[in-house]
Amino acid sequence: MFKVLPLENGLENVQGFFCGATNVGMRKKPANSDDRELDGDVAFIRSSTPCDIAAVFTSNTFQAAPIKHFQRYPKGFQTDFVLINAKNANAMTGEKGIEDIDTIMSVLSDKQAVLNPVMSSTGVIGYRLPVDKITSAFDALDFHASNSHQTARAIMTTDSFKKELAYKVALADGSAFHIAAICKGAGMINPAMATMLCFIITDADIPKEDMDALLTDAAQNSFNRISVDGDTSTNDTVMLLSNKQSGNYDKAAFAEALNKLMFELAMMILKDGEGASKLVAFEVKGAKTEAEAKQASMALSNSLLVKTALFGEDPNWGRIASTIGASGIACNEETLTIHYDDLLIYSNAFRELDKVREEKAYEIMKQDSFKVTCDIGMGDASYISYGCDLSYEYVKINAEYRT
Amino acid sequence: MFKVLPLENGLENVQGFFCGATNVGMRKKPANSDDRELDGDVAFIRSSTPCDIAAVFTSNTFQAAPIKHFQRYPKGFQTDFVLINAKNANAMTGEKGIEDIDTIMSVLSDKQAVLNPVMSSTGVIGYRLPVDKITSAFDALDFHASNSHQTARAIMTTDSFKKELAYKVALADGSAFHIAAICKGAGMINPAMATMLCFIITDADIPKEDMDALLTDAAQNSFNRISVDGDTSTNDTVMLLSNKQSGNYDKAAFAEALNKLMFELAMMILKDGEGASKLVAFEVKGAKTEAEAKQASMALSNSLLVKTALFGEDPNWGRIASTIGASGIACNEETLTIHYDDLLIYSNAFRELDKVREEKAYEIMKQDSFKVTCDIGMGDASYISYGCDLSYEYVKINAEYRT
Repeated sequence: MFKVLPLENGLENVQGFFCGATNVGMRKKPANSDDRELDGDVAFIRSSTPCDIAAVFTSNTFQAAPIKHFQRYPKGFQTDFVLINAKNANAMTGEKGIEDIDTIMSVLSDKQAVLNPVMSSTGVIGYRLPVDKITSAFDALDFHASNSHQTARAIMTTDSFKKELAYKVALADGSAFHIAAICKGAGMINPAMATMLCFIITDADIPKEDMDALLTDAAQNSFNRISVDGDTSTNDTVMLLSNKQSGNYDKAAFAEALNKLMFELAMMILKDGEGASKLVAFEVKGAKTEAEAKQASMALSNSLLVKTALFGEDPNWGRIASTIGASGIACNEETLTIHYDDLLIYSNAFRELDKVREEKAYEIMKQDSFKVTCDIGMGDASYISYGCDLSYEYVKINAEYRT
Repeated sequence: MFKVLPLENGLENVQGFFCGATNVGMRKKPANSDDRELDGDVAFIRSSTPCDIAAVFTSNTFQAAPIKHFQRYPKGFQTDFVLINAKNANAMTGEKGIEDIDTIMSVLSDKQAVLNPVMSSTGVIGYRLPVDKITSAFDALDFHASNSHQTARAIMTTDSFKKELAYKVALADGSAFHIAAICKGAGMINPAMATMLCFIITDADIPKEDMDALLTDAAQNSFNRISVDGDTSTNDTVMLLSNKQSGNYDKAAFAEALNKLMFELAMMILKDGEGASKLVAFEVKGAKTEAEAKQASMALSNSLLVKTALFGEDPNWGRIASTIGASGIACNEETLTIHYDDLLIYSNAFRELDKVREEKAYEIMKQDSFKVTCDIGMGDASYISYGCDLSYEYVKINAEYRT
């Protein structure tokens, strides 16, 4: 038996890792603040010993320069340094964008011994990185700092709160390892369209092949349930770094901790939905195949008319049903049922929403989070995805983002 | 040679047709108005002689009762009467919904001789039609009226203006026929998700097979360019009725008039986008196949991040490029170019948006309508779709629609 125990704070819990951030002038500092630590735009995570690294990147054809730069290292490379910047995505910048990273890393290596350093960026597309500004960070940064809060804040863009998590995994033999992460991203209409970055570090003595397999798996059960496959930003990145320093490992325990960590982070992203006020789980069950269940579930969590109805706390199930019908899966009016939490809101037996049920539905919808369950009634396959409502605030944030 | 000449007003221009509307209490009347004609909720269009009818319906699996009712008539049936109601979609109402239409039509046939009457509905999903209210219309309606304005108004839901159009088609031999239509629908994020209804009437002596072929074709070039295939409301309907009364016909002339009519109506829907302030054409050219060009073009006209950028008049092309990259088509950064109207805004030669270009782009975006052209640079195929921006007003309208 093992236990996954939540820890205070974030990255500083993992043996042999350092992290920190500074402001080099890409992000405006709050008025009257001389504290460069409060609002960083350049951050690092590094390990005192080489790490294996597993990563999942965006499926967007126009992968940003840092992703291309990463992929030029030989397969199975080790690294001990991740550099991260906000405010500029270094995307659609062509070969020059990759050269800029090489330049930055070359300056870095004059200040700090690094092994195959990698980079990750988020921000506006289409502008070259301000190389001089970014390299100026290397004088300001303390490479022996362990400031997870600061690091988590520095990678934020439209996020309204920083996202960090850490667990201690206690194994049956009394040994333990640690896993922690910082993450940025704010859930949106088509969630993956705005960049999501996640950096996970561990001191578990995990084999490289387990890292690859478990990370891919955990991504399917977390970030991919709040986003549409194949419709992702140019920069989306999830990285897992392991420096093995604890010397301890158990595959089942690591898998559980990783899944829990990534699922919790995905929910944080959703709760931080740009202007979102509600988190809604969309379970589709009774579908003929899991692919169909997923298709209908993702259609619901992405439907604008469903999202605006959630925001309006409108208990009408018509938009839910219409979205199921339009999703292209096998379904019919007679076998379909719809629940809000435990309340049956549509079935063939009664279709019209009476006042009592409408009032109960309204009470459920007023909650910060609830579940919509659509039973297709045609098979055994199911899928859950997670969405948020669409508010005025979403439009405001996205209309004004760059200005 | 032939000429397609615009006419004043709408349906009353077509020989042998009658139309009108009344209020039966489903739609709230404006305060201090006793004029039941101003805000009808039940409308009719009829012909003094039988019509051939061609129709295109939603691809939503949950087709509304009026569509199922229509489809129960034998193939190639003729009709002389279309009954339309707003405020209630008669969707997800099962067999009872179809029986309600039969009941209504049975009452109608006591008041007015009708041949295979058809119905069309728009409004909230999941409630039975108020049969008694609707049949009360048959006492109020004047079946010899020709009030196109009133009819066009009666079918509106979130529309902010009525949509009607009429043309006279003058043929080379001095003969002529007429075509006219009313339409409802307000462009939105995923345009086809809110119901679109369009009723086209003509006195052209058009063969039934031409009606079917030309209507399908014209729909592809109009309403389908502002909507996503397979993602439609439960009630979407386009009908073409011909009573042949002019005795005149020319296929090429009819095709041109029908295409022009339906394209203009599609643009009206878009301009009436729920809260929309801009109409944007998204042309994708230089794609490997037309299917890919269409896929990328529709991805652009449906992208929330693109739509909010349009609303914010943000000239950054990053969201355009990212959407192209995420659309799943063959493309690369080096061959892609992006224009706003005639202004080159992205190419491999210069990527960063300088102040001059940004200022020019901003001027273009301030217009009520403009064109975004993405040349993929990999082939000869192209496609244009049409979209609108996303404003605060959209969220307001859709959050508050039912209440």
